[in-house]
Amino acid sequence: MNRVFNFAAGPSTLPVDVLKKAQNELMDYNGCGMSVMEMSHRSADFDKIVKDAEKLMRELLDIPENYSVMFLQGGASTQFAMIPLNLFGKNKKADYIVTGAWSKKAAEEASKYGTANIIASSEETNYTYIPKVDEFSKDADYVHITMNNTIYGTSYKYVPDTGDIPLVADMSSNIMSEKIDVSKYAVIYAGAQKNLAPSGVTLAIVRNDLIGKHMDITPTMLQYKIHADKGSLYNTPPCWTIYILKLVLEWAKQLGGVDVIEANNKKKADLLYNYLDSSDFYNGTAVKEDRSLMNVPFVLPNDDLNAKFS
Amino acid sequence: MNRVFNFAAGPSTLPVDVLKKAQNELMDYNGCGMSVMEMSHRSADFDKIVKDAEKLMRELLDIPENYSVMFLQGGASTQFAMIPLNLFGKNKKADYIVTGAWSKKAAEEASKYGTANIIASSEETNYTYIPKVDEFSKDADYVHITMNNTIYGTSYKYVPDTGDIPLVADMSSNIMSEKIDVSKYAVIYAGAQKNLAPSGVTLAIVRNDLIGKHMDITPTMLQYKIHADKGSLYNTPPCWTIYILKLVLEWAKQLGGVDVIEANNKKKADLLYNYLDSSDFYNGTAVKEDRSLMNVPFVLPNDDLNAKFS
Repeated sequence: MNRVFNFAAGPSTLPVDVLKKAQNELMDYNGCGMSVMEMSHRSADFDKIVKDAEKLMRELLDIPENYSVMFLQGGASTQFAMIPLNLFGKNKKADYIVTGAWSKKAAEEASKYGTANIIASSEETNYTYIPKVDEFSKDADYVHITMNNTIYGTSYKYVPDTGDIPLVADMSSNIMSEKIDVSKYAVIYAGAQKNLAPSGVTLAIVRNDLIGKHMDITPTMLQYKIHADKGSLYNTPPCWTIYILKLVLEWAKQLGGVDVIEANNKKKADLLYNYLDSSDFYNGTAVKEDRSLMNVPFVLPNDDLNAKFS
Repeated sequence: MNRVFNFAAGPSTLPVDVLKKAQNELMDYNGCGMSVMEMSHRSADFDKIVKDAEKLMRELLDIPENYSVMFLQGGASTQFAMIPLNLFGKNKKADYIVTGAWSKKAAEEASKYGTANIIASSEETNYTYIPKVDEFSKDADYVHITMNNTIYGTSYKYVPDTGDIPLVADMSSNIMSEKIDVSKYAVIYAGAQKNLAPSGVTLAIVRNDLIGKHMDITPTMLQYKIHADKGSLYNTPPCWTIYILKLVLEWAKQLGGVDVIEANNKKKADLLYNYLDSSDFYNGTAVKEDRSLMNVPFVLPNDDLNAKFS
């Protein structure tokens, strides 16, 4: 087998051991005589898969008990709507820090349902840095950040201190890549296809006191409450994708958990950044202090060379 | 391998040839050195997969050119909201024929966004039959039916003649099981996990003149327009599931298409229904004229025996 080096930011490479296990079990899962792709989502076998996935996720990310863990569909793009639809209260106001195309899209989507205040943005430098913000609108229902910004190679190195205002973080491109303190966030969401699983499943970690207050116009499938109450089994979930997610989480646990993953990522990132910094030819795009651990973009000395490279 | 007989209504059994091909290609698709699960949705390989899937779907269902074919997420339950959000016009009124738990849910979801008139229902007999309806509200934005009703074993044998009013059909449990005239419908939708693919992808076939008129409150991801414009690639789609869908469609084409599938289904259904009709012990639940080709529910002479059976 001729396995390539795959640096795509997402969907991304999966551990070979996970792929091999999935291949071995594809026709007959656990001796049950069928594929996970054919299995009723109400069967005991699948119930164990989804419960194990949740348990491993809680363990690896050290998720406190007062948070619900959900496996949803529709990607982060659907979360851009679910966040305001589920979290807007009487004020229908939120603060957004814009650090790239995705956080901008998230703010635009929220502005359909209320006021999305862009309280800080690094757009004027084409998102080369993460704004350091310590003041928030007192009447905001939540503050939204995009923790890691793939295209621009930036990442938050601090957790904005929003006090009593719920902090919402899109972690699609850095989830499980480094240790985080879940208790500092009210909502964490992540499309799975970069760090967790194949595309088709979205992780949402939501503090329980924020669940059940959705706006009247919220489609049932976009209410956190129904998915939290039903353990991600309100309707037929993406069973195969949740199964691969479970295999990835087992692999991550066996590896030593997020501490080991973070150490590996730091080693790899240092190697690249040190080389970029010592080179006159390759130039990083993000300011040093906000550099991403996950995405190391660079440019060449001029646009002609950039064009040749890609 | 100990393959079981799997009669689950959905997720359902997949063709063994499809599973074998998926297994063979799992680690290395088409010599590209990676799994379909790891592949960028913007890559040439995946672009071909999604375009081939659409082409095969158009061919097998004989879909006219003035319809868009979309592969979405969220299942039929998400369509319950997308239908009113995308089709309600000035009147915000629709007619619903209720033939089971799912059409009832669809009507309830629509009533969030306007008026969902239940113009006929077979609920009073626990859905043993399909109401024959030939009058519709003149100001309805659409008429909604659930073509096949899994639990109750009923199916429409006629296409309601709604004249100029768009006819919307949930075909989650009978899509591709028999020939249909797509041109008689304005919208056809189907969760894939019963007849088309593993769970995690939803087929929507929408007449183009109905696209782009969604309500202002419609989340971007729930707008038909964005998915139709982007060829189901607005955001990261469920790549692996679409790939298996493509394999199933190739299998169906090789089998001889929907004509052959329908003939096979008739043969199997006749065998079961003839046995039920000749038996004093097994009793069908649906009236004969509305019997489903796909789901053949039956009961035993009394509840004690029913309890023993399940």
